[in-house]
Amino acid sequence: MSETIAPDVNASDAITTDVLVIGAGPVGIFAVFELGLLDMRCHLVDILDRPGGQCAELYPEKPIYDIPGYPVVGAQELVEKLMEQARPFSPVFHYSQMVETVARLPEGGFAVTTDLGTRFHAKVVVIAAGGGSFQPKRPPVPGIEAYEGTSVFYAVRRMEAFRDQDVLIVGGGDSALDWTLNLQPIARRVTLMHRRDEFRAAPHSVERMRSLVAEGKLDLVLGQVTGLAGADGHLSGVQVKLNDGTAREIAATRMLPFFGLTMKLGPIADWGLNLHENLIPVDTEKFETSEPGIFAVGDINTYPGKLKLILSGFHEVALMAQAAKRIVAPGQRIVFQYTTSSTSLQKKLGVS
Amino acid sequence: MSETIAPDVNASDAITTDVLVIGAGPVGIFAVFELGLLDMRCHLVDILDRPGGQCAELYPEKPIYDIPGYPVVGAQELVEKLMEQARPFSPVFHYSQMVETVARLPEGGFAVTTDLGTRFHAKVVVIAAGGGSFQPKRPPVPGIEAYEGTSVFYAVRRMEAFRDQDVLIVGGGDSALDWTLNLQPIARRVTLMHRRDEFRAAPHSVERMRSLVAEGKLDLVLGQVTGLAGADGHLSGVQVKLNDGTAREIAATRMLPFFGLTMKLGPIADWGLNLHENLIPVDTEKFETSEPGIFAVGDINTYPGKLKLILSGFHEVALMAQAAKRIVAPGQRIVFQYTTSSTSLQKKLGVS
Repeated sequence: MSETIAPDVNASDAITTDVLVIGAGPVGIFAVFELGLLDMRCHLVDILDRPGGQCAELYPEKPIYDIPGYPVVGAQELVEKLMEQARPFSPVFHYSQMVETVARLPEGGFAVTTDLGTRFHAKVVVIAAGGGSFQPKRPPVPGIEAYEGTSVFYAVRRMEAFRDQDVLIVGGGDSALDWTLNLQPIARRVTLMHRRDEFRAAPHSVERMRSLVAEGKLDLVLGQVTGLAGADGHLSGVQVKLNDGTAREIAATRMLPFFGLTMKLGPIADWGLNLHENLIPVDTEKFETSEPGIFAVGDINTYPGKLKLILSGFHEVALMAQAAKRIVAPGQRIVFQYTTSSTSLQKKLGVS
Repeated sequence: MSETIAPDVNASDAITTDVLVIGAGPVGIFAVFELGLLDMRCHLVDILDRPGGQCAELYPEKPIYDIPGYPVVGAQELVEKLMEQARPFSPVFHYSQMVETVARLPEGGFAVTTDLGTRFHAKVVVIAAGGGSFQPKRPPVPGIEAYEGTSVFYAVRRMEAFRDQDVLIVGGGDSALDWTLNLQPIARRVTLMHRRDEFRAAPHSVERMRSLVAEGKLDLVLGQVTGLAGADGHLSGVQVKLNDGTAREIAATRMLPFFGLTMKLGPIADWGLNLHENLIPVDTEKFETSEPGIFAVGDINTYPGKLKLILSGFHEVALMAQAAKRIVAPGQRIVFQYTTSSTSLQKKLGVS
């Protein structure tokens, strides 16, 4: 880990917190609970726009059978229960952004920045990032990189960037449909393209899209992108192959491909931690990384015997919290208490 | 661990099983689930007469707040959920008995016997014994040891041993009241003694007891035992100090003191395992003891960072199960699967 800190990281607008948790999946959320029992407060950063991590993104509707005490529980239901359990400790969630840099502060603790410019000063950093960051899948179109960030976007952060543009949206899920409907009123023209005339989106969105097409306010095209036309990162048109076998070019100055998400380790690789096959080795006493004060819990860590089970992450955060406490409140005696019998813990939970 | 085996342990009436689990608390029950996912079948032995261990015995009515995914859950409710989760794997429970001996079989695996004479041949032994065995508390009466097992009993195993006897039952809880009511029809005379005229037992039992007293069929005495009279282990009377300050002797050939339970390590100390302050040291990869093939999980084990949390026991059994599988089915490839996505696991669980 580099000891250097970008000057702006020390700016007074940084959010100070005991613990910065990277990742708001089930294990990150339960970390809030275990840290909270020991009086530590958390901010959490997640690249998704809601809590739950893989549970929320990959299989919200699927039942899980191996959470102890739940013969069956829906992934989304589990996330909601964990959020309820963490609530007494007032965690602050920072969604739709990714931690980019983690640097050690001269006075101890860490300066953390996200790609949206949010800054934190935290005494402890807990990486609960699962398989890494969810990143949009790039469509297999030659030369697309040259247009990314100028004409091709994988998410809409500012709708103004699409005003009065010819927008091509590619995909058939909720993101594609939602942005088709949201951008249609402000764009010059929106074209929605999908491989087939079926959509995996909310029925009322599909219905609304079809009536806009019927009114002539929106174009629906069935086919696939084959190439891009433009110069210096500025798109002018998209070559497509239609399902009837013909080829044509669609006028487009903006393209939004929604091809799903994939997991990548992302910037974690740059924080100076020891890594082993894209996983972070930790000890099994504190679940601390090669960098003191930075812990790794859940699917992203590795140790002998490691299983990528949610229940293992739960155990890991309980032990990690004890070690984190020694950093956040050095010298303070930690009294190990049970929620069943300790009125002090029950008071923190708001039940006593 | 001794390699010698009592001759009777090899008798053909031994129950054969993949895994013998000692202790049917929450962690022992969840072990059934994790072992079952890997096709291993379990028998469980517990000194209590029902599942749940400390949850059932010490705090069945109390809420627990730190089971992940349960903002609050009753101890008894958690036990019931875990039993439901284990059910697809048809565990067999052997209650009201204590494992006394564990010895290695020459052909591999272990011979296990209980104090009730139940015998097992198991490929793997899992100690999930919490704080050890619940043992009845001995009342502070001089010389009581001399009568234990002949005239003084802490549990009723055969009601016939009380037929036509003068029975003194001491205590004010459910066990005292239940046995007062059960033995009254067959004993010569039953006397119930308690420190005060208030009982912590089911109201209908207390009511029934009081009507038997009113009918003259039962004696109720308020006071405390001070001494025993008798010879050669055969009780003839019990000296008591009544709450009004007077002393007397109550004719009694049998005494049943119900002074509650306490936890003791018990026979585990004799199995040749390395112990540390009455805990069993294990590694954090397999949670195996110093004896290969014997694992220890939950509150009874120790390792760096260990916390006596139910959730840690859950994690431990998941990792233990992988190691147990390599012993039960050596050479067989273990495919790590998720209940969320594996139809093979879902079939085992009866949900697919």
